[in-house]
Amino acid sequence: MKKLINKPEDVVREELEGIAYAHSDLVKVHFDPNFIVRADAPVQGKVAVISGGGSGHEPMHGGFVGMGMLDAACPGAVFTSPTPDQMLEATKAVNGGAGVLHIVKNYTGDIMNFEMAADLARAEGIEVEAVVIDDDVAVKDSLYTAGRRGVGTTVLAEKLCGAAAEQRRSLKEVADVCRKAKELGRSMGMALTSCTVPHVGKPTFDLPEDQMEIGIGIHGEPGRTRLPLKSADEIVEMLMEPIVSDLPYKAGDEVLLFVNGMGGTPLIELYIVYRKAYEIATKHGLKVVRNLIGSYITSLEMAGTSITLLKMDDDFLKLWDAPVKTPGLRWGV
Amino acid sequence: MKKLINKPEDVVREELEGIAYAHSDLVKVHFDPNFIVRADAPVQGKVAVISGGGSGHEPMHGGFVGMGMLDAACPGAVFTSPTPDQMLEATKAVNGGAGVLHIVKNYTGDIMNFEMAADLARAEGIEVEAVVIDDDVAVKDSLYTAGRRGVGTTVLAEKLCGAAAEQRRSLKEVADVCRKAKELGRSMGMALTSCTVPHVGKPTFDLPEDQMEIGIGIHGEPGRTRLPLKSADEIVEMLMEPIVSDLPYKAGDEVLLFVNGMGGTPLIELYIVYRKAYEIATKHGLKVVRNLIGSYITSLEMAGTSITLLKMDDDFLKLWDAPVKTPGLRWGV
Repeated sequence: MKKLINKPEDVVREELEGIAYAHSDLVKVHFDPNFIVRADAPVQGKVAVISGGGSGHEPMHGGFVGMGMLDAACPGAVFTSPTPDQMLEATKAVNGGAGVLHIVKNYTGDIMNFEMAADLARAEGIEVEAVVIDDDVAVKDSLYTAGRRGVGTTVLAEKLCGAAAEQRRSLKEVADVCRKAKELGRSMGMALTSCTVPHVGKPTFDLPEDQMEIGIGIHGEPGRTRLPLKSADEIVEMLMEPIVSDLPYKAGDEVLLFVNGMGGTPLIELYIVYRKAYEIATKHGLKVVRNLIGSYITSLEMAGTSITLLKMDDDFLKLWDAPVKTPGLRWGV
Repeated sequence: MKKLINKPEDVVREELEGIAYAHSDLVKVHFDPNFIVRADAPVQGKVAVISGGGSGHEPMHGGFVGMGMLDAACPGAVFTSPTPDQMLEATKAVNGGAGVLHIVKNYTGDIMNFEMAADLARAEGIEVEAVVIDDDVAVKDSLYTAGRRGVGTTVLAEKLCGAAAEQRRSLKEVADVCRKAKELGRSMGMALTSCTVPHVGKPTFDLPEDQMEIGIGIHGEPGRTRLPLKSADEIVEMLMEPIVSDLPYKAGDEVLLFVNGMGGTPLIELYIVYRKAYEIATKHGLKVVRNLIGSYITSLEMAGTSITLLKMDDDFLKLWDAPVKTPGLRWGV
């Protein structure tokens, strides 16, 4: 196992210490239970937006805490749901009196633990709404999931909801933005290599030198099919076809095109992926009006990519363009 | 070779097409010869700042073209110097009448070709200064270099010089900023794995599963030593000691700490590296007043990291904090 780590059991704590040293102007890191909140939390009168999930997907979610995006993020152990007490303490820490939105990726453990935290928070008088993102068109029902998995649309939903909350929209309105993103976002990913969970010490799955996995999950869950390695253009066709043919895209729609790296894939390859994805979207009559290109929802050092399309409208465009100031995404400030 | 590419000979062109599709609001891409210029070039009365080098180090340099950073970047073939005609055409395209600064990394081919381009531009009446960055403390004289190699400080110098040019400083003053960054920046890197140049098709060097290379160059040039794999903390000690003990750092100095990923290393590991690098800097009495953490000067899909320290002063702080709007680095706008 070749990684820049110390003891496997210290990976998450030491990562959080690094974030605390690096970004004390933007965030505060709490330990035991572990969560990251924006430095000025709680913001009175503003809906708070929280997400969380297993570690190993950085910068998601901790890197998206700050003005214009998340109020808090709860990192679990690597590829392991955070515990209810993490979400509960984070919910209490960021509650500014206007309610708290939980953005949850569709994995069974995450849903169960977020639900428990929401119930406990409500018992303490905090208004909580939860929206579950399930945008992965690759497979229905998977290793850790009933229904579709939650992947790239989560990043986009966090940006949009964070901007809506900054405008002082109500909890219901911010949750509506999230529900709309969930309805209008579609993703699919693939892997060239496996990743290795630090405390396991060996690759999550075996993938021979001439093979790739199409429809991979962000924890290395099996995808749709394993095939001989193909060209980037052919791979992008295999990802874009199921995304575009799934509801709800039609010619003339404006979309955001998000090309994501899985952690071990360099930017030069992501632009080659973007090139073909853009051409396919355009061929279908879609108008790519915004994009995001980089490694934002990762699977440790896995090599591979995922593509997300999100249908945009005037409200989404304004929310996307609004200022954001986080360690992982920043513009306008 | 597991890569998201089509034909190896098309990698750079297709990457540039992806950049052109993605960032037409920020940059224009010219083909044959290949170079990227900011969308509003030439900016009349402003010194233009240009860099370039082999492809495979993305986002450097093409990702740093835009307001507040580079006016143009010239990408060569993978790990191959751009040709003089690329730099000459880019120099002419961005010349706004106040002169052009060439920021050159210290590799023999880059220096030769940039010098030729500068001579040709001067013959056409354009004032050109060139500054060579040679900040890598790992080795003196290397595979492609006489003297020290140019690495991470280049990214920081491009930001600082871009900001100085936006303030309408003169060519000599912008070049002075670059010369100061060259004097005050020190870097060293290491690799856990090799990278594979697309048209070669096999790893640049063999590195057994239990070995690492300390002092690696960004083209996979040999470093100082090959050792059994160690913990992140021990690795960071091995990188920080030569940096801090080299001129010019002393207790009380303010520094920018840049932890860079080599392309295949995920962010979670870079924060573990940053944690220890920050602690070592602090133990030496250095005050880390700014930082940059991410994969900004890469070696294709190589796993590994490099650390750069740059001594800061009031002028450098203001230039660093100034707005920048490029595909790869953005804040304030």
